[in-house]
Amino acid sequence: MSGTQTSSDRAAAAAMDAADPLGAFHDRFVVAGDGLIYMDGNSLGRLPRETPERLATVVREQWGERLIRGWSEGWMELPRTIGDQLGTELLGAAPGQVAIGDSTTVCFYKLAAAALAARPERTEIVTDVDNFPTDRYVLESLARRHGCEIVWIEGDPHSGPTPEQVAAAVSDRTALVTFSHVSYRSAFILDAHALTAIAHDAGALMLWDECHSVGAIPVSLDADGVDLAVGCTYKYLNSGPGAPAFLYVRAEHQAALRQPIWGWLGRRDPFEMAPGWIPAEGISAFLSGTPPVLALTAASVGIELSIEAGIDAIRRKSVALTEYAISLIDDWLVPLGCSVGSPRDAAVRGSHVALVHPDARALCPRLADAGVLTDFRTPDVIRLGLSPLTTKFVDVYDGLARVRDLLG
Amino acid sequence: MSGTQTSSDRAAAAAMDAADPLGAFHDRFVVAGDGLIYMDGNSLGRLPRETPERLATVVREQWGERLIRGWSEGWMELPRTIGDQLGTELLGAAPGQVAIGDSTTVCFYKLAAAALAARPERTEIVTDVDNFPTDRYVLESLARRHGCEIVWIEGDPHSGPTPEQVAAAVSDRTALVTFSHVSYRSAFILDAHALTAIAHDAGALMLWDECHSVGAIPVSLDADGVDLAVGCTYKYLNSGPGAPAFLYVRAEHQAALRQPIWGWLGRRDPFEMAPGWIPAEGISAFLSGTPPVLALTAASVGIELSIEAGIDAIRRKSVALTEYAISLIDDWLVPLGCSVGSPRDAAVRGSHVALVHPDARALCPRLADAGVLTDFRTPDVIRLGLSPLTTKFVDVYDGLARVRDLLG
Repeated sequence: MSGTQTSSDRAAAAAMDAADPLGAFHDRFVVAGDGLIYMDGNSLGRLPRETPERLATVVREQWGERLIRGWSEGWMELPRTIGDQLGTELLGAAPGQVAIGDSTTVCFYKLAAAALAARPERTEIVTDVDNFPTDRYVLESLARRHGCEIVWIEGDPHSGPTPEQVAAAVSDRTALVTFSHVSYRSAFILDAHALTAIAHDAGALMLWDECHSVGAIPVSLDADGVDLAVGCTYKYLNSGPGAPAFLYVRAEHQAALRQPIWGWLGRRDPFEMAPGWIPAEGISAFLSGTPPVLALTAASVGIELSIEAGIDAIRRKSVALTEYAISLIDDWLVPLGCSVGSPRDAAVRGSHVALVHPDARALCPRLADAGVLTDFRTPDVIRLGLSPLTTKFVDVYDGLARVRDLLG
Repeated sequence: MSGTQTSSDRAAAAAMDAADPLGAFHDRFVVAGDGLIYMDGNSLGRLPRETPERLATVVREQWGERLIRGWSEGWMELPRTIGDQLGTELLGAAPGQVAIGDSTTVCFYKLAAAALAARPERTEIVTDVDNFPTDRYVLESLARRHGCEIVWIEGDPHSGPTPEQVAAAVSDRTALVTFSHVSYRSAFILDAHALTAIAHDAGALMLWDECHSVGAIPVSLDADGVDLAVGCTYKYLNSGPGAPAFLYVRAEHQAALRQPIWGWLGRRDPFEMAPGWIPAEGISAFLSGTPPVLALTAASVGIELSIEAGIDAIRRKSVALTEYAISLIDDWLVPLGCSVGSPRDAAVRGSHVALVHPDARALCPRLADAGVLTDFRTPDVIRLGLSPLTTKFVDVYDGLARVRDLLG
């Protein structure tokens, strides 16, 4: 698209919306009537219209009427049943390998700790300086407790660690390699298959953070040979603020790996309340406390919507949205001092675009005042989250037009 | 009450209900219309009538309309604001010492691990064989990782460890002493003040599990000198299945103690996303992941109801309910082979009554079929949970009459 065509042609955006195979999903979500342009669905996804009703039904009919009986009528299985939906439809994981329940941080802690315990003779953890903060902090804590060192890869901030960097960082001292599949800042997609193979060649376990990939790009945990993964559901899966996260443990590792939070719901026959923790079969051994039924109920609505849309259609829409955003940035915003901090190659770009500007920190709240919600990421990035089920092409047009107006 | 008066006089139970100062609270909860007698509110509390509406409002008006802005409009503070409500009104804790968010198991893990790390030169954990399973299992895991041994006190199963037993178990090797304040099986109330002092005399830290005490009996964490505590909200606090748990860390310990799950929300300035975990001020350093906003919203309704009723009034009602249940058991069920597995002294009895019968395991589902929900606890206990805000005296009468009919 040339600048002239683009800037003069909001109708082109509207036409793309009209032709969008996922366009009908927009109406499945609540959209506030105040003209807000929401480019933050990569941080907190929109509310599905069905969620309040589903929640009310479960609350009234199950909690209210069935009371404690709910636990034997499905609640206890929710971490695994929703986990299997997520796994088979969105993560490329055969059943029995995904469970959902704790926060991302707690899930990440459990799996990283399990990996370190499985490689007790090894003393190093490999990750990158731009990995998501909560992952980095958990690794620091675990490194201290396990007497390990973290090998920090300084990847390109606009992409991430390269296979060459990872290959140079791992060794026979490496217990665990862990990265975010999609960078929370740049949206760069790491090559999960290649990097997992590099970790395995060194005899290390590989743990992927899928927070910015699940529901946005196809994920192939089984096929990529991934050992461990975690991810949240409140971004592209529209599951609500602070919604539960999931964990994946490859079937072949489930008997040998031990997570450290030995709760009753990870034990065989928990209601026997017997002495001694004996791991439950399969993925259940990676659970700890009582499943958060209300939060899981809300999550299931959002997850089902993504499954209904289909991850391949979601990916196509995502690529179209980010391509369009980058074309508008090039036309309107690069001349005003912005640059694109995300990959220009759609094949390695997730579903947000990092708009780089030296005054990003101040610009972000001004944009919010102008009715465009984005978020700021240090030091100079405005993240434009383009959520395939809820973001329209005209939203991209209107949002970037307001950025242009603010900077112009 | 004599047997004759009691067994013939359901009207007496109705009169007690009519005179109950908390009687009006019964109507603040959803009560299924099927005549169910619910004696399991100590496992899962009933649904407050207000909860579905409060949830729908937060979901629609906050998540739906405010979207990501919700985080700066109160969501981020929920673990501490609800924690302070709980702390000041129900736990005897001054503000700034209680936070709510993870499961009980995760909270217990964090605080037990923090205690062990604070006493690195010590090698023993003291608890009792009848402590709640998830606590025991977490301790086993931590003991293994920290190279500690667990000193298991074999308390009387109908009460719990005595001060003499605890004094004999602790030594200068003890890092951590931990018990449930109210036994999940017998309802025996341990002397938190005395046992905490015994732990301190040995130089150990004291961690209380308040799952079966919070909202049922007065708790005095500050005055009792308690170091650490956790507890759930889905029992007497009526917060919903799998509702978030709380943790308490005494103010004077907050700077020195470190929990192991260093998430972004326990870090100073989390949104700077900077390198290196630096603990946040105060209780916030004990948080890890993103607060579960929907679950916390439901929890706040239940917690507020208990606060409105007042813990002293709740305790008076609880004592009256359990005294009445024991009188009926003595009159009707002792002659049929039952015994009372809970303390007969109300001063050391929580809000449930352990009904002991050799066939308890088979009896419990038969009771459920007869419309009385209780729960079975190995080896021979039927727990009769009497929830002060929702259990009526006629429920006790009718429920125990059905037990009598089944056994008679």
